[in-house]
Amino acid sequence: MIGRLNHVAIAVPDLDAACAQYASALGATVGAPQDEPDHGVTVVFIDLPNTKIEFLYPLGDDSPIKGFLEKNPSGGIHHICYEVDDIVAAREKLLAEGARVLGNGEPKIGAHGKPVLFLHPKDFNGCLIELEQV
Amino acid sequence: MIGRLNHVAIAVPDLDAACAQYASALGATVGAPQDEPDHGVTVVFIDLPNTKIEFLYPLGDDSPIKGFLEKNPSGGIHHICYEVDDIVAAREKLLAEGARVLGNGEPKIGAHGKPVLFLHPKDFNGCLIELEQV
Repeated sequence: MIGRLNHVAIAVPDLDAACAQYASALGATVGAPQDEPDHGVTVVFIDLPNTKIEFLYPLGDDSPIKGFLEKNPSGGIHHICYEVDDIVAAREKLLAEGARVLGNGEPKIGAHGKPVLFLHPKDFNGCLIELEQV
Repeated sequence: MIGRLNHVAIAVPDLDAACAQYASALGATVGAPQDEPDHGVTVVFIDLPNTKIEFLYPLGDDSPIKGFLEKNPSGGIHHICYEVDDIVAAREKLLAEGARVLGNGEPKIGAHGKPVLFLHPKDFNGCLIELEQV
């Protein structure tokens, strides 16, 4: 069912510093910051040859990243995103297997403009998993 | 400098359950467990079309994963691994940029039989980064 690893999302406490470091010390291809007000984040993509790293930085007072950074002041890996062909079929299969889908269970349009769902980290080895329909 | 994302390593509290779940609920291609006594871990690779997930489970009393699982009983993402062409050149560049390399700074042969180094998580947004020469 799951396909490619779409991205690894890293919450960062200092977006400019993180971008400069990945560009300079790690020699990576760093994109421009994009504000996503509907998701309460500013995102920056690091393009790797086979996948992406997504920096997440809080935008606005209700950012879902704010609490994470309070608990993890240095930052940390926030979630990983697997691609699926059919997000509703994926949800039904996961629910049948006893996994919990976060929120009301309905796919939302994610930061990439595609339907996404998040799965409960406690059901998946402590990892927050995003599923994105591609 | 960094190339492909070689893998995302997830420490898991129950290896059999994690493998069964990824095979069944997530429909992924799950490999056979491999004991790596030199590294104190049993590993299982989940093959995705573009990269790998590596489950880590403690092997032996001195496993480097044991403390992580005590702090994170549900499991969690332990590290991410970026590929580099020349690990010594990568290390020199990182040290020149002020980043800290863990251990004595000399590359070791990692669980995949290739030279690896780990970078200090506090220098990289709270993420433990492995560099692997490919």
